[in-house]
Amino acid sequence: MVIQEFGISIGPLLAGAGIIGLAVGFGGQYLIRDIISGFFIILENQYRIGDIISIDNTSGQVEDISLRMTTLRDLDGTVHHIPHGEIKKVSNLTKYFSRVNLNIGIGYKSNLDHVITVINKIGCDLYEDPNWKPFIIKAPSFLRVGDFGDSAIIVKILGETIPLKQWDVAGELRKRIKIAFDEEGIEIPFPQRVIHQG
Amino acid sequence: MVIQEFGISIGPLLAGAGIIGLAVGFGGQYLIRDIISGFFIILENQYRIGDIISIDNTSGQVEDISLRMTTLRDLDGTVHHIPHGEIKKVSNLTKYFSRVNLNIGIGYKSNLDHVITVINKIGCDLYEDPNWKPFIIKAPSFLRVGDFGDSAIIVKILGETIPLKQWDVAGELRKRIKIAFDEEGIEIPFPQRVIHQG
Amino acid sequence: MVIQEFGISIGPLLAGAGIIGLAVGFGGQYLIRDIISGFFIILENQYRIGDIISIDNTSGQVEDISLRMTTLRDLDGTVHHIPHGEIKKVSNLTKYFSRVNLNIGIGYKSNLDHVITVINKIGCDLYEDPNWKPFIIKAPSFLRVGDFGDSAIIVKILGETIPLKQWDVAGELRKRIKIAFDEEGIEIPFPQRVIHQG
Amino acid sequence: MVIQEFGISIGPLLAGAGIIGLAVGFGGQYLIRDIISGFFIILENQYRIGDIISIDNTSGQVEDISLRMTTLRDLDGTVHHIPHGEIKKVSNLTKYFSRVNLNIGIGYKSNLDHVITVINKIGCDLYEDPNWKPFIIKAPSFLRVGDFGDSAIIVKILGETIPLKQWDVAGELRKRIKIAFDEEGIEIPFPQRVIHQG
Amino acid sequence: MVIQEFGISIGPLLAGAGIIGLAVGFGGQYLIRDIISGFFIILENQYRIGDIISIDNTSGQVEDISLRMTTLRDLDGTVHHIPHGEIKKVSNLTKYFSRVNLNIGIGYKSNLDHVITVINKIGCDLYEDPNWKPFIIKAPSFLRVGDFGDSAIIVKILGETIPLKQWDVAGELRKRIKIAFDEEGIEIPFPQRVIHQG
Amino acid sequence: MVIQEFGISIGPLLAGAGIIGLAVGFGGQYLIRDIISGFFIILENQYRIGDIISIDNTSGQVEDISLRMTTLRDLDGTVHHIPHGEIKKVSNLTKYFSRVNLNIGIGYKSNLDHVITVINKIGCDLYEDPNWKPFIIKAPSFLRVGDFGDSAIIVKILGETIPLKQWDVAGELRKRIKIAFDEEGIEIPFPQRVIHQG
Amino acid sequence: MVIQEFGISIGPLLAGAGIIGLAVGFGGQYLIRDIISGFFIILENQYRIGDIISIDNTSGQVEDISLRMTTLRDLDGTVHHIPHGEIKKVSNLTKYFSRVNLNIGIGYKSNLDHVITVINKIGCDLYEDPNWKPFIIKAPSFLRVGDFGDSAIIVKILGETIPLKQWDVAGELRKRIKIAFDEEGIEIPFPQRVIHQG
Repeated sequence: MVIQEFGISIGPLLAGAGIIGLAVGFGGQYLIRDIISGFFIILENQYRIGDIISIDNTSGQVEDISLRMTTLRDLDGTVHHIPHGEIKKVSNLTKYFSRVNLNIGIGYKSNLDHVITVINKIGCDLYEDPNWKPFIIKAPSFLRVGDFGDSAIIVKILGETIPLKQWDVAGELRKRIKIAFDEEGIEIPFPQRVIHQG
Repeated sequence: MVIQEFGISIGPLLAGAGIIGLAVGFGGQYLIRDIISGFFIILENQYRIGDIISIDNTSGQVEDISLRMTTLRDLDGTVHHIPHGEIKKVSNLTKYFSRVNLNIGIGYKSNLDHVITVINKIGCDLYEDPNWKPFIIKAPSFLRVGDFGDSAIIVKILGETIPLKQWDVAGELRKRIKIAFDEEGIEIPFPQRVIHQG
Repeated sequence: MVIQEFGISIGPLLAGAGIIGLAVGFGGQYLIRDIISGFFIILENQYRIGDIISIDNTSGQVEDISLRMTTLRDLDGTVHHIPHGEIKKVSNLTKYFSRVNLNIGIGYKSNLDHVITVINKIGCDLYEDPNWKPFIIKAPSFLRVGDFGDSAIIVKILGETIPLKQWDVAGELRKRIKIAFDEEGIEIPFPQRVIHQG
Repeated sequence: MVIQEFGISIGPLLAGAGIIGLAVGFGGQYLIRDIISGFFIILENQYRIGDIISIDNTSGQVEDISLRMTTLRDLDGTVHHIPHGEIKKVSNLTKYFSRVNLNIGIGYKSNLDHVITVINKIGCDLYEDPNWKPFIIKAPSFLRVGDFGDSAIIVKILGETIPLKQWDVAGELRKRIKIAFDEEGIEIPFPQRVIHQG
Repeated sequence: MVIQEFGISIGPLLAGAGIIGLAVGFGGQYLIRDIISGFFIILENQYRIGDIISIDNTSGQVEDISLRMTTLRDLDGTVHHIPHGEIKKVSNLTKYFSRVNLNIGIGYKSNLDHVITVINKIGCDLYEDPNWKPFIIKAPSFLRVGDFGDSAIIVKILGETIPLKQWDVAGELRKRIKIAFDEEGIEIPFPQRVIHQG
Repeated sequence: MVIQEFGISIGPLLAGAGIIGLAVGFGGQYLIRDIISGFFIILENQYRIGDIISIDNTSGQVEDISLRMTTLRDLDGTVHHIPHGEIKKVSNLTKYFSRVNLNIGIGYKSNLDHVITVINKIGCDLYEDPNWKPFIIKAPSFLRVGDFGDSAIIVKILGETIPLKQWDVAGELRKRIKIAFDEEGIEIPFPQRVIHQG
Repeated sequence: MVIQEFGISIGPLLAGAGIIGLAVGFGGQYLIRDIISGFFIILENQYRIGDIISIDNTSGQVEDISLRMTTLRDLDGTVHHIPHGEIKKVSNLTKYFSRVNLNIGIGYKSNLDHVITVINKIGCDLYEDPNWKPFIIKAPSFLRVGDFGDSAIIVKILGETIPLKQWDVAGELRKRIKIAFDEEGIEIPFPQRVIHQG
C-alpha cells in the first residue's frame, strides 16, 4: 500500500507475483503428494526401518523413512532414494514371517515318492538342527508337483521362517538338497534334447 | 475478523491459505479415489479376505481389505500393499469354484485314443478317491487337442474343484499322470531336433 | 441460514464443503465414465452374457454385465472384474459366427498337392459327420501356403463354425489331421538344423 | 422459479445439478472426440466397409463404420469394436492397390543369377496364368538381395495386385516357388550351424 | 433476444450451448494441434511428397501431406494415415543424400587386410560401373572393424548415394560381395559352436 | 495508461499479453519443477559430484549438479544431461560404502565345502594384500548357495569396499578366483546339454 | 466498436474468437515449451553442431540446432527432426573427450597375465603410432576382468581419445587385437557347449 501511495501502478507487480505463486503451488503439489503418501505409509505401518521391501523392481533394506522419501540399500550396496509419491504398490518381504519357496527340477525318470521322502527328511533335519531351529517356524517340506518342464519335473518345496532369514535358510536347504540328492542318486537334470538324424 | 480489526492486511494470509488448501485438495483427491474404489470392491463383493486374487501381475491371498487399500500375501510370504485407486482389473482365482486346466505335451508318435482313455481314467480315479473327492466338483478329463507344438502334441485336461484346492488337485493329478504314463509307455517328450549333416 | 443467524461465519464451512464436493465430483467422474461406456456397450450390443470376449489380453466368458463393469470367467476358472471405463477395444470371439483358423507346419519335402487333398478331405469328412455337422457352417479347407518357416512350410486351413464351437471343432480337426497325416505319411516336422563339421 | 416462489432455497439444487452436469460433460467429451475422429475418417475416406485395415496391432476387415466406432472382423472370426477416439494411426492394407512383398531365404551356395531367372520366370508365368491375371497388376519379380542372414541369403520379391488379393497371390507364388525350387535344385535352407569339437 | 421477448427463460439454453461448445472446443484442440504441427512440417521442409520417412516404427513413401495428416505407403503396399499431432520425431531417409551402411560378418580365420582390399575393389568397381555411377556419390568402402561377434568379425562398409537409391545400391553391393567372396575364398560364416563331450 | 490517453483500445493488447503470459507460465512450470527437485537433491544430499549414480537405466559419474540438471559421464565417455524434474528414483552406487556381490557358477559335480573353503581363502588373501587392504572394509566371503542354474550351481560371494573401488576389487577377485579354481580343479562350467538319440 | 454501432450483437463474435484464441493458446504451448527447452540447450551448451548425440535411442551427428528443434543425421544417412520439447535426457558422445571401452571375450583356458601383457602392448603401440597418436589422449589398456561369461572371460579395455575419433580408434584397436591374438595364440572363443550322451 505504501508503494501505491507513490502512485506506482501495483498491477503488473501483482500479476508477476501471481504467476510465480501459481507455478510454485503447482510444483509444490508433488511435495504435498509425497508427504500425504508418506503419512499413510507410516500410519498403516506398511514397512519399517530394517525391513526388506520391493518397490517397482527395486528391492533393498529400508535405511530411512522420511516424510518425503524412503531410502533403500540393496545387496550390491547401492542406495536408492524413492519419493513416496512415486510409490504405487509396496511389497514387504519381511512382515511377521517369511517363506522359503523352492522350485527344484528333478529328472523325468525319478521315483517321485522317493524324492518326496528325501526332501521331507532334509526339511525335518534342518528344522531339528540347533543352528537353524531359531530361524525356522515351519519345516520346509514337499508341497506339490509344480509343473512338467521341458527337461525336468518341477517339485515345489515350502517352509516358513522368521523374517530376514528366508535367504539363509533357502541357501542352506539348497546345499543339503544337493548333497542328499548326490547320495540318493536323484538327478537335477541339465537341459535335455532328443536328436533325430535327418 | 479480529485480525482485520488491527488493521493488518488479511489478503496475503488468505492467498497463502488458498494455495495450501488447493494443494491439499489436489493431493487428497487420490485418497478419495482410493476410498470410492474400495467402496465398490466391497459393495460388489469382488473379493473377500481369504480369496486368492491377482492384480496387475501380483497374486496372493487377501489378508486385509481396508477402505483405502488391499493387503495380499503371496506364496513367497511377501506382503503386498495395493491402494484401491491403483486397481483397474481384479482377477479372483477362487470365486464360487475353480478349475484345473492342464496342458500336457505328448509325443507325436503317441496313440491319441489311448492317451485320452488313460487321462480320463486318472481323472475318474482321482474323483473317486475319498481323500480328494471333497475337493473335486467335476472329474478332470480330456478336453481337446490343444495345439501341435514344436516337439509335442499339447493335450488339454479340464476339471472343476472347490475354491483354493485347484493347485493341490493339479499337483496330485500331475503326479498320477506321471506314474500312469510311465506304466502305459506314454512319453512326455523332451525338446526334439532333426539334424542334417551339411 | 439459520446458522448465519447466530452470527457464526459461514465462509469456512462453505469452503470446506466446496473442497470435499470438488474431490467427490472429481472421483465420481470415473464412475460416470464407467456408466457411459457401459451404456454404449449395451446399446450397441457389443457383447452379451455367454459370449467369449477378449479385453486387453484377458479372455473369458461374460458372466455378468452391470452398468459399471463386466465380469468374465476364463478357462482356468478365474473371475475377472473389469470396469467399463477401462475398456478401450473389445474383441468378441463369438459374434454371429466363428472361424477355425489353423496353421499347420508340414515338411519341406512334402508334396503340396497331396497335402491339400488330404486336408480338404478331412474337412469334408468332419463336415459330413453327424456329430459335428450341427456346429460347422463351412467345411474347413486349405486356404493358402502361409509362410516358409525355418523348419516347415506353414499351411493355412480355414473353416466357419457356429459361435462357441470353434475350439471343439479345431481340436477334433487337429486330432483327425494327426491320424490322417500318420496314415498318409505326411510329416509335421520337428525343428531342423544342418550341422557342418568345423 | 416456481420452486423459488415456495421459499425453498434453490442454491443446493443448482450446485448438485452443476456437479452432475460437469461430470456428464467431462464423460461426454470422449463421445465428442469419438465423433470428431469418426467424421474425419469418413471425410478423408481413410477406409471403407470391406477394406482390410490395421489399428494398433489389430487387423481385420471393416464390417461397419458408425460415427462412434469401427467394427472389424479378423481371420479368426473375432469381431473387434474400436471407438474412433482410440485410433491414432490407421493402416489401410487395401487402398487402390496392394503389393506382394516376399522375403525368401536361399542357400549361401546358390547361384544368384540362376535364382533370379527362376523367380522372374515364376512371376511371369503367374501373371500370364488366366486364373490369376485378373488379380495381378505388376508381375512379381526379383527386387534385390535383401540381407545376409545367419543361414540364408534373403532375396526380396515384389509385385503388385488388386486390393484384397495380395494374400492369395502370395500363397500361390509361394507354392509355385516351392515346386520350381525343388525342380531347379535351389535350396531353402534350414538353420545352419558349424560344430567344432572342443 | 427475440426468444427472450417471449418471456422464455434463456438460461438453460445458454448452459446447454456452453457445455456443447466446451466439448467441441476441447475435441477441436486435437484438430488445431494437428494443423500447427502440419504447419511446421511444411514450413521447416522436414519432408516432401516422394520422400521415404519413418515415424514411430512406421516407414513408407510420402503420398500426401495435408494440413491435418500425412499419408505414407510402405513396401507392402499398406497405406498409413498419421495425424500430424501424433508425430513426435520424424526421420527422413532421403534428404539431400543417403548412405549405404553394411555390416558384413566374416570368419575369424580371415585375413583382414585381404578382406579390406576385396571390399574396396568391389566398391570402386560399382562406382565405376556406368549403370550405377549416376546413383553413387561416394564409393562404398571399408570403414572399420565394427565388432567381434559370436561367430564372425563384423566389418562395416560405408558409401554415399543419391536419395532413394540406397536400397538398390546396397542390394547390388551385397550381390557383388557374395560373388567376390566366393571367388576369393572369404567366408561369411554360419553360427559356430564348440562342442565338448561331457 | 499513457497509451489509453491516446484513445487507443488497450483491451486486445492486454488479451495478447495474457495469452503469452499464460503460455510462459505454463512452460515455466517445468523449470520450477526442475529447481524444486534440484533443491531437494542437494538438501537431502542424495548424491554429490564424484559419486556414481544411476537414473532410469543411465549410470555414470556425477560431473556437475546445477539447480536445473545433473550431468553424468559414463565409462564410454558419454556425457548425459538430465533435468532434475525427470528424476523419479535416484540410485547412488557409492554412498558411504559399496559392496562386491559376485554370483559364480560352479559345476554340479563340485564339492561344495571345498569350493567354500577356496573362496573364503581368496577373500582373506585379497583382504590381507597391502595393495588392496585400503580399499576393502569386509573381506569377500561365501554367502550362500544362490540358485540351481541350468548348467551350474550359483554361489554368492559378498564383501564390502570403500566407495568407487567395488569394480576394481571385483575384477581382482574374479582374476584370483579364476587362477585358484584352475589350481584346485574347480570348474566354471560351459552350458550343458544331454543328448538322446531319437 | 464500429461494428457495435451498427447494432449488431458482438457477443457471439467474441465467444467464437475466445474459443479459437484458447485453442491456439493451448496448441501454442507446445511451441513455447520447445523454445524454452531450446533456450536451455543452447545456454547450457549441452551440445553443438557437429557433436554426436543420442536422444531416446536415436543417435546421430547434429546438423542444425534451431530454437524449436534439433536435426541429426545418423550413419545410415537418415535425418531425424526432434522438437526440443520432446527431449528429456540428452547424451553427448563427444564432449571434451571420448573413451574407447572394449569388452573382449577370451577363452577360459587363457593365461590372464599373458593376455593383459599383450593387450597393454597393443594399446601402447597404437598410442605411439604417429598415424594414431594425434587422436589418442590415454593409451588403451587392460582395466579389469569384467565378467565370467557363458563361453568366455570378458576382459575390459579402456582408453581416452579426442572427440569423434573413438570409433576409428576402437576399430583399429580391434583389428590389431585380432592380429596379435592370432600370433600369440589367444583365443576369442565361439559359444561353447558340453554334450552328455543320455
